[in-house]
Amino acid sequence: MFDLIAAGKQAKQAARALAKATTEEKNRAVLAIADAIEACADAILEANARDLAAARERGLSETLIKDRFDLSRRMPGIIADVRKVAELPDPVGTVISESTLPNGLHAAKRRTPIGVIGMIYEARPNVTVDCAVLALKTGNASILRGGSEVFHSNVALAGAIRGALQTLNLPNVPPDAVQFIESTDRAYVEQMLRLNEYIDMIIPRGGASLHQFCREHATIPVITGGLGIVHIYVDDTANLDQAVEIAFNAKTQRPSVCNAADTLLVHEAVAAEFLPRAIERLSASGVTYRAEPRALALVGGLAGVQAAGENDFDTEWMALILGLKVVNGLDEAIAHINAHSTFHSEAILTQTQANADRFVLEIDSAAVFVNTSTRFNDGSALGLGAEIAVSTQKLHARGPMALEALTTYKWVVIGQGQVRP
Amino acid sequence: MFDLIAAGKQAKQAARALAKATTEEKNRAVLAIADAIEACADAILEANARDLAAARERGLSETLIKDRFDLSRRMPGIIADVRKVAELPDPVGTVISESTLPNGLHAAKRRTPIGVIGMIYEARPNVTVDCAVLALKTGNASILRGGSEVFHSNVALAGAIRGALQTLNLPNVPPDAVQFIESTDRAYVEQMLRLNEYIDMIIPRGGASLHQFCREHATIPVITGGLGIVHIYVDDTANLDQAVEIAFNAKTQRPSVCNAADTLLVHEAVAAEFLPRAIERLSASGVTYRAEPRALALVGGLAGVQAAGENDFDTEWMALILGLKVVNGLDEAIAHINAHSTFHSEAILTQTQANADRFVLEIDSAAVFVNTSTRFNDGSALGLGAEIAVSTQKLHARGPMALEALTTYKWVVIGQGQVRP
Repeated sequence: MFDLIAAGKQAKQAARALAKATTEEKNRAVLAIADAIEACADAILEANARDLAAARERGLSETLIKDRFDLSRRMPGIIADVRKVAELPDPVGTVISESTLPNGLHAAKRRTPIGVIGMIYEARPNVTVDCAVLALKTGNASILRGGSEVFHSNVALAGAIRGALQTLNLPNVPPDAVQFIESTDRAYVEQMLRLNEYIDMIIPRGGASLHQFCREHATIPVITGGLGIVHIYVDDTANLDQAVEIAFNAKTQRPSVCNAADTLLVHEAVAAEFLPRAIERLSASGVTYRAEPRALALVGGLAGVQAAGENDFDTEWMALILGLKVVNGLDEAIAHINAHSTFHSEAILTQTQANADRFVLEIDSAAVFVNTSTRFNDGSALGLGAEIAVSTQKLHARGPMALEALTTYKWVVIGQGQVRP
Repeated sequence: MFDLIAAGKQAKQAARALAKATTEEKNRAVLAIADAIEACADAILEANARDLAAARERGLSETLIKDRFDLSRRMPGIIADVRKVAELPDPVGTVISESTLPNGLHAAKRRTPIGVIGMIYEARPNVTVDCAVLALKTGNASILRGGSEVFHSNVALAGAIRGALQTLNLPNVPPDAVQFIESTDRAYVEQMLRLNEYIDMIIPRGGASLHQFCREHATIPVITGGLGIVHIYVDDTANLDQAVEIAFNAKTQRPSVCNAADTLLVHEAVAAEFLPRAIERLSASGVTYRAEPRALALVGGLAGVQAAGENDFDTEWMALILGLKVVNGLDEAIAHINAHSTFHSEAILTQTQANADRFVLEIDSAAVFVNTSTRFNDGSALGLGAEIAVSTQKLHARGPMALEALTTYKWVVIGQGQVRP
């Protein structure tokens, strides 16, 4: 039986060593992990094949299997991504702010690792590698709990990672820095969420229900997110050619992800012109529509358009479906978004600067876009390098979580004998 | 009956308005609050007198009553502190980082209010004012739950604050921005901890048990802290004159607070010289000592020194008691701290730079001090202006929480029609 308490203790101990590791030591470890995954590729793919066979036996959809579980065409990409992490700047040790006080004390906020990061994730086995490597790069130990559908793949990947650290044999980057929960028993998830003695932060990656479960049960700080009901508002002065392309991109480029558009809000002054053009462009990719009465009055006769149901504007579609609503203007758009958004990603398309400014100020989402696609709410798309998750909560990290989001800081105060008066 | 759901909705609504408030509007509100507290001082002190009388009737200690509950000599200080908040720079709207990507997108992390901040605090009524004003200055609404011992004082203070906003009548700083739970029923604390629909962050201020209760029951991110088992390590090269004064300051200046020293660790090479001198200085202020065997062997004969009991090195004294331990050197000091600390504040006193560096790197506390007193772990002492709490957790804010800790950020991405390839 897997002993999570023991794993927690080992991870905490390893985190103490990792806090002392130099950037060069951490990068050596990251590169050794890439090499080990490369060297173990056959064994990893064999384990993956067992997971795929079991999934097919259970009758899971071939799309799901190919899109999420199957590593066969992904290994070179996974290995290349690990090597890229070695090239990213190390945030640990950098000074966030510093000052010398009138009494001569020098006070600095210095970036440090967080300690032990718990990751709870679902079906993609490459997350095992991402999380272990990004945590390591930032001097953190990790405790990983992957989805049961790819259990054998995860065991093989975690084994390669720990094996690489074993062989490398650096005292400050011990193999115990990466703990993988070798069990599919769901009880470990609950135990993990309450292991505040050893785990400093929990990052769930998966659907909204996983995030909610974590929020309900954790005694450890949790970074939640995972749900994006995403709005695009087309203002009366929007460049409609651009607006059609942005709506097309945000809806169709990758409909199953959280920054894909769910609802199109259109200013009444341009709705009659814009909606048919947008529908013509998007329908070619198979999009269908749920329209509220005013939108339905304009485009109800077009193929694929149906009346919106009661909860359609509170649904994250994850599919080629788009809500349509005509609004009187910016005020109604903002009110609709505040009432229906999950505050992940929203966009305004407008040439009116004052409206753009108001939208940016009044929409309280993790990322707000002006005249561009919500699909850019992503670590690599925003130039941050690798991301470990996208947060929709407001504490610690919001939006794409890159390396810095895996660090905290300590106050370092240097004196020459000062005492407090 | 107080309706917490209604209060939550009102606070959320008010937070939307506050997010649009200018710095000037927020400062006007802060100054109006100071004026109102000044104008209502008699009524506030009358309410306070009722609380004091009830406390005396219940037989609570006079020290507690004078130190925590009694506002009579504190009003001018409270009012002056509010006025100072108006002078602090407003962090909202500042840009944390920005960049222009190769595709022309401009991406910035812009500081914003958090939204609605829930505060759960104990006996000091001035916390009502601090929290309401610091939240307001950073554009946040607040829901305040104060301790029952000073309930009438809190009601009077909250009334003055809301009255000031009512009279000021600024649409972006509505009175609903400050919600005070007008009930001493403890059930509201639990309800508040699960009100994640309306509250974005909970800050408890009080003892360790309050923090633990919040961590256990909250579905909202909580900033925990409140417990400081604080260590000072006197290295073999410490300036012993300074070390005596720093130990004296850290232990005796304000023994009931969380950054006061609890344990003195002394290098064996200087223990025989240092311990008797430190004891001579501290005993004059009434300090007594709990010594482990090696320390006891050196100073066991001195007045006030007794053998340490089993849990004495795991106790936050909050009193004029100090643990004494002789260690072989830095390694043993670090090991002791890692085993017994609550990671709030720790100090090393040394002239050996390499030892100072190791201590700063390897001690994982919110604040680490070199050659100065742990009493400086405090917002105003570190030049941050007012503080709302001291965090010992690692996410969002660590150490003294000043205005910035009451903000989050949003990503603002400005394009010219870009779509994701």
